Amino acid sequence: MEFQADKIDSLVPQWLMTARKMILESFSQKIEIETKTSRNDLVTGLDRKIEQFLVRKIQECFPGSQIVSEETRPTINEIEEEGLLWIIDPIDGTMNFVKQKNDFAIMIGIFRGGKGQRGFIYDVMADRLYHGGPDQGVYCNYQKMKSPPDVPLVDGLLGVGGVMLINNKYNLQKIALASHGIRIYGSAGIEIIHVLNGQLIGYLSHLHPWDLAAGKILAETLGLVVKTIDGREVNVLSSIDVLVASKNAQKDIIMMAQSHC
Amino acid sequence: MEFQADKIDSLVPQWLMTARKMILESFSQKIEIETKTSRNDLVTGLDRKIEQFLVRKIQECFPGSQIVSEETRPTINEIEEEGLLWIIDPIDGTMNFVKQKNDFAIMIGIFRGGKGQRGFIYDVMADRLYHGGPDQGVYCNYQKMKSPPDVPLVDGLLGVGGVMLINNKYNLQKIALASHGIRIYGSAGIEIIHVLNGQLIGYLSHLHPWDLAAGKILAETLGLVVKTIDGREVNVLSSIDVLVASKNAQKDIIMMAQSHC
Repeated sequence: MEFQADKIDSLVPQWLMTARKMILESFSQKIEIETKTSRNDLVTGLDRKIEQFLVRKIQECFPGSQIVSEETRPTINEIEEEGLLWIIDPIDGTMNFVKQKNDFAIMIGIFRGGKGQRGFIYDVMADRLYHGGPDQGVYCNYQKMKSPPDVPLVDGLLGVGGVMLINNKYNLQKIALASHGIRIYGSAGIEIIHVLNGQLIGYLSHLHPWDLAAGKILAETLGLVVKTIDGREVNVLSSIDVLVASKNAQKDIIMMAQSHC
Repeated sequence: MEFQADKIDSLVPQWLMTARKMILESFSQKIEIETKTSRNDLVTGLDRKIEQFLVRKIQECFPGSQIVSEETRPTINEIEEEGLLWIIDPIDGTMNFVKQKNDFAIMIGIFRGGKGQRGFIYDVMADRLYHGGPDQGVYCNYQKMKSPPDVPLVDGLLGVGGVMLINNKYNLQKIALASHGIRIYGSAGIEIIHVLNGQLIGYLSHLHPWDLAAGKILAETLGLVVKTIDGREVNVLSSIDVLVASKNAQKDIIMMAQSHC
């Protein structure tokens, strides 16, 4: 299957708008909430409904696609060299969705031959769509974005996972104190949007494929670094600690993380 | 001097809209930035300009008022029993203003005889004004707000100061892990707005008078608790660790903070 950029760029935003309507309607209804791996790992009826909707649309419009999605299709055995791989998070930041009705995202990353082609991060409540890929650059609501400035750790704000910070993994407390401050928004998508915008110089957290796929494509397209904390390439099908950062901040953070060992 | 509610409710929102224009205009200009007590404590030319503007307006329209404001009038000796006391933060979250151009607030708290009469927290970039007081309730852009539900710690998200969390003051790491998660937005005003909205069940941080004055009036009007971490009343002229929280979350947090001693 070819990459079909025009078809993707025309259809996916329509699906996301439909999903947004489902979400806004859900606010006036009782939402069914269950826990998954822990009491802070939630899934709602809406996560499942939006996932079903997106999977159905992909299967209809792009038959033969491989699909990885958070709630019902979390793994595949092998990436097919010739086909499209879609990695989906129907609601990233489900806790924020439930407790705040804000600061959550729908995310879709599209790969071909293992290479990122298109990322979509939709900040649903702000109605702000970040999308793009290496062939076209990155857009916020169809306005082309510039690469954020290459700011070092000491001059920027850093997004982190809360539990990772408390556990001081990778010397993270010292890294945080070396920055201008830490921020915790509770959604990988929302944090990565802040990195794309240059509002954070980096974001470090434990991420699953659906937390990272879209953001990795967009961040790398803008010249940001998306690597493990020891600077290795990230396999987008693995669940792993990932640093999305400016080149300078990444160097600073890697050095401080290693000085802990 | 009388409290003059109508005059305050009509004039202050106009001043805030003018201040917003100054801020939006500043984004196209070079902003002068200096550090104060530490490298993470910033003041910009805009903080000073907005403070001057607000102080001048108060002196013109409410002559004889006492004024406490972050940049140039941080203390007064004594609260006059008969007059109005205005406590002002021209830009709360200056680091966010500089690094993110988002998530900062203008805050004004108005007291008479030591009692909070009117609070204004203006989320500048969202153009959302939270205002009110004990005689009228609390409004978000002139829509009356309900009191947030009285949620316990275990069922909610908690806003914290980043350095306080890293230092584990008051057993805060354990408290954070007992909640559904922590959030750090980098502005007391923005954090307190989340508590007013029920998006956070509490916010714990070291606050100065201008960080707290407006939020204390609004939070107490909505039935939230604003106390020290050991449950004492907060003197609004002091710089102190303050917990703004639902009644249930406050009880839970106080108990866990004390179990540390």
